[in-house]
Amino acid sequence: MSSLGSERDLIERIRRRLPAAPPSLVVPPGDDAAVVIPERGAFQVLTTDAVVEGIHFDRRFSTLADVGYRAMAVNASDIAAMGGTPSLALLSFLLPAATSVEDVDALLDGILEMAAEAKLAVAGGNLSRSPGPLVVDVAMTGYVRPRRILTRGGGRPGDALYVTGSLGAAAAGLEWLRETGDEAALSEEMAECLRRHRRPKARLRAGSLLGRNRAATACMDLSDGLADAVRQIAESSGTGATVDAGAVPIHPGAATWFTSRGRDPLLSAVAGGDDYELLVTVPRKAAGRLRGVQRASRGLAFTRVGELTRESDVVLVRDGRRQPMPGGFSHF
Amino acid sequence: MSSLGSERDLIERIRRRLPAAPPSLVVPPGDDAAVVIPERGAFQVLTTDAVVEGIHFDRRFSTLADVGYRAMAVNASDIAAMGGTPSLALLSFLLPAATSVEDVDALLDGILEMAAEAKLAVAGGNLSRSPGPLVVDVAMTGYVRPRRILTRGGGRPGDALYVTGSLGAAAAGLEWLRETGDEAALSEEMAECLRRHRRPKARLRAGSLLGRNRAATACMDLSDGLADAVRQIAESSGTGATVDAGAVPIHPGAATWFTSRGRDPLLSAVAGGDDYELLVTVPRKAAGRLRGVQRASRGLAFTRVGELTRESDVVLVRDGRRQPMPGGFSHF
Repeated sequence: MSSLGSERDLIERIRRRLPAAPPSLVVPPGDDAAVVIPERGAFQVLTTDAVVEGIHFDRRFSTLADVGYRAMAVNASDIAAMGGTPSLALLSFLLPAATSVEDVDALLDGILEMAAEAKLAVAGGNLSRSPGPLVVDVAMTGYVRPRRILTRGGGRPGDALYVTGSLGAAAAGLEWLRETGDEAALSEEMAECLRRHRRPKARLRAGSLLGRNRAATACMDLSDGLADAVRQIAESSGTGATVDAGAVPIHPGAATWFTSRGRDPLLSAVAGGDDYELLVTVPRKAAGRLRGVQRASRGLAFTRVGELTRESDVVLVRDGRRQPMPGGFSHF
Repeated sequence: MSSLGSERDLIERIRRRLPAAPPSLVVPPGDDAAVVIPERGAFQVLTTDAVVEGIHFDRRFSTLADVGYRAMAVNASDIAAMGGTPSLALLSFLLPAATSVEDVDALLDGILEMAAEAKLAVAGGNLSRSPGPLVVDVAMTGYVRPRRILTRGGGRPGDALYVTGSLGAAAAGLEWLRETGDEAALSEEMAECLRRHRRPKARLRAGSLLGRNRAATACMDLSDGLADAVRQIAESSGTGATVDAGAVPIHPGAATWFTSRGRDPLLSAVAGGDDYELLVTVPRKAAGRLRGVQRASRGLAFTRVGELTRESDVVLVRDGRRQPMPGGFSHF
């Protein structure tokens, strides 16, 4: 393990690992600030999200490459949820005294792997010592076409609610790591839950297609779970919502895990956080456009789980009985 | 003192305090990400900088309003040093368990005061718990006209080196707080040093004027001190530099303080960090344009302290003797 040395040496080491800057990045990392040519005819999307040791990750359960990957993915997911395409990241590292050069290399491994997958460039960043936890705080920019922006508030009564992928895997994976930890005895389904916790897959292609194709009226990601997302879209859109419990796509590993712990798989899956799936509202007349998005989304499932309603309640319908939607997940 | 409550309540409390979003911010804080209409005909400037408890501030010496102000000012300074104008900030707060609602209000007091001074809007942010220090991590965007960008690398041999304002005050103020602390016995000069430590004044007007008027070929801010900045501009520009010790504008309070501690005021002032003054290189033919910037800068002093040279050494000339420039300040 090598000590970090001076800030300048460490910045130089990081810069050497960055791929060549895209031509739009006219002043790349290394000056007081980065300068970029904006995408023509587009609006800009801005977001920030931090990954904090002891709050969002535990070094016993995730490698630092996982941490770096995750810090990028959670930001990109927010941009996709606006119908946008992520383009540039600013990295702010807070490094405890015990951090080694190898630790920084590992963070960058994950960051650059996710950046390559999403065609994102690192525009700049900042290094600081931390007297406490390791923190990777990312700010990300992206672009979206005007009139293609997917806010949370665009839904209308009668719009169908669709969710991508499947739910509960990340929450189940984290619980498994905390309670079990013997990865040799892992089923393939459970291994997938661990991967979803460690390396969340942001639905970037689906988000930008939903924006471009006008298939959706509202969209948000499920970072705090389906229950929270349905409530937020309904509130922002001035509607209520019903969710059909039987239709919710629960990840098979999560269903097995929650059942084995004597818990209700559905309630655990809709309340669990860190599913970076998308919840979208689709008007009846856009059903064909949604099928187009589905076909272009490389096998990603879109499941109809309910609809927005004129009444303001947010309701879970289960075996014909209506009950209030359970509470969501809170990272805070 | 009131406890923070839920993330949602705290976000709502913060949002209620934000001034109305400018029309360019088409999706203001509260959705997955913010959406903004880019400035027409401009490039975008991006930067990030964190202010960390125990590293960059000490609650005994600064209020949380000072901390918020400072977190904004240090980012805005980086944008000004590119010849740009800051426009939007993303705020990432890491909050220890003992943080109260009043603490968050105080941070916002300073943030919004600086934002109002600089006509900056808050575009969004993120809240997280911290198992360690309080952190305010800001990412900031601004704009700059193409061909008006001031990098560190644009200087040429023969360009004069100018510095704004005066040096050493922030470093002297911090030392005074650490070693003395009886503010009743404070001279007016020393009180100014404390203010410079607590509420650094970024040279925003000067930076954007220097870019627009083509008065400068290179620019950077003095966050790590004059010695460091001269070395970095010379290195990036492929030149050397000489600095005339007798010309360096040392803040009178800093001169008194460093002398009283038996230290060399010049060496202390050029090595001290946290002067958010600007170092600029000015070609001979732009001397008239620099006078124009000076006149428009509301009394801000521009002092010629040396020049860039063909030889690669970075030299301090003192009483006719040449010596290597001393080392700079490191926050890391």
